[in-house]
Amino acid sequence: MTTLRLTVEYDGTEFSGFQWQPDARTVAGVLEAALSKLLDERVKVSGAGRTDAGVHASGQVVSLATESHFPLERVSPALNAMLPNDCSVREVAVVAPEFSARFSARERTYVYAILNGPRRSALLARYAWHVTRPLDLEAMRSAGTHFLGEHDFRSVATVATGSRCVRTIRRLRIAARDELLRVEIAADGFLAHMVRSIVGTLAECGLGRRDPASLPGLLAACDRTAGGSTAPAHGLCFAGVRYADGYDSFMEPPLFGRFPRASSPLDGEQAFP
Amino acid sequence: MTTLRLTVEYDGTEFSGFQWQPDARTVAGVLEAALSKLLDERVKVSGAGRTDAGVHASGQVVSLATESHFPLERVSPALNAMLPNDCSVREVAVVAPEFSARFSARERTYVYAILNGPRRSALLARYAWHVTRPLDLEAMRSAGTHFLGEHDFRSVATVATGSRCVRTIRRLRIAARDELLRVEIAADGFLAHMVRSIVGTLAECGLGRRDPASLPGLLAACDRTAGGSTAPAHGLCFAGVRYADGYDSFMEPPLFGRFPRASSPLDGEQAFP
Repeated sequence: MTTLRLTVEYDGTEFSGFQWQPDARTVAGVLEAALSKLLDERVKVSGAGRTDAGVHASGQVVSLATESHFPLERVSPALNAMLPNDCSVREVAVVAPEFSARFSARERTYVYAILNGPRRSALLARYAWHVTRPLDLEAMRSAGTHFLGEHDFRSVATVATGSRCVRTIRRLRIAARDELLRVEIAADGFLAHMVRSIVGTLAECGLGRRDPASLPGLLAACDRTAGGSTAPAHGLCFAGVRYADGYDSFMEPPLFGRFPRASSPLDGEQAFP
Repeated sequence: MTTLRLTVEYDGTEFSGFQWQPDARTVAGVLEAALSKLLDERVKVSGAGRTDAGVHASGQVVSLATESHFPLERVSPALNAMLPNDCSVREVAVVAPEFSARFSARERTYVYAILNGPRRSALLARYAWHVTRPLDLEAMRSAGTHFLGEHDFRSVATVATGSRCVRTIRRLRIAARDELLRVEIAADGFLAHMVRSIVGTLAECGLGRRDPASLPGLLAACDRTAGGSTAPAHGLCFAGVRYADGYDSFMEPPLFGRFPRASSPLDGEQAFP
């Protein structure tokens, strides 16, 4: 039995999310169909992030177990030839048998794109949330600091009663150039809708509809009705996952320049302490 | 009678090109339908570039004449509300009556995107030509110098016999970062398929299938069969037009960072003298 780790990219527009569903086109579904055909056995994949319908990924990671002896170096070209245009595989590696893309992940990074200006953009329509009224970046950054660290995040997530909702946000950076805003959020893990609800809450602060100073109270309420609205799925991109073996799948989403992290995508990028 | 100049952006994937056609979805068609409804009269638009089916535009310019007194400041918001998601208007201005987006243009700039690497990318699939074998940038740059200046370009264009085919290429820049190549070509005007055929010819030089030193002979042949293949439409973006009044509609295509020219999108960008 061999365990494989795949780094996967997809345009979420035409997918009903990552997770397999019986009657919907999902990322796990197209991956499992291609892998099962290629490896000639029933394959099930586990993903580092269960992205919602419409959410993109530049650095999703999936793992799978296989009995097949298909030559490793041919897996990625073969899959890219079999998968639809809106899903591609960037890297394939053999990893330790106990590796799980989901449970071995130490840190996940999402990047959210906002077009902030009076006019919408046809070329950004699939990948950025268009907010027409001006966003106050300083208010958003001030609000963002309150999400940093370990909190119970159920005020900004969709969760079943009784679930464990404590997560640790390690980075929350907001950068802007011209009309394009880039919000990067990294954490040990995320609850359902958590990134989008945080971005929605930050945007409400940026529009002056919510006071950044109210955020500690919002989190303490531990109640979804206290949190802000959920930002649309199409602005979100699952950008990377970090593992204990040092592997980091991070890839900048194309509209910020599809370059590895080393080459800083934006000037004036601000990191919170 | 008022003459309006519109700066227009579109994702060319679902359009049968810019130019109006009776039974196809074209950019001119959707613009004329929206404008005719908004201004309550039959409107015809003239475009600076007749982009092919599948070609995108970040800085297309169109002009039109109208008898309407619809308030100028409301034209752009109204059009953006009426146009489909894959076409948007960035700017609207009243210009001199004799202005023509097509005939008043002094310089047009196209940007072509190539993903050069063994693996395709789902998020770049709509906007970059995927070339798997390594391209030799120096060979491409050396080839590019031969296109600069005034030439008869019929070897790299689709033209009717007897047409005037002399154009002047003012800039041809090839930049790369990681696997992404950006080819920028600016000229007083372009013949049909000219940018794509030049990029196709440059790529053949980059792949070692054609000697850059053969390009003067290729141009001198004045014969389409002497030129290289036509690069695919989806890698091409019509990025800007310059006019005598100083207006420049240039906008960087999103995958190179959708920022105005002032903020250089790529390091190591090389301009030909």
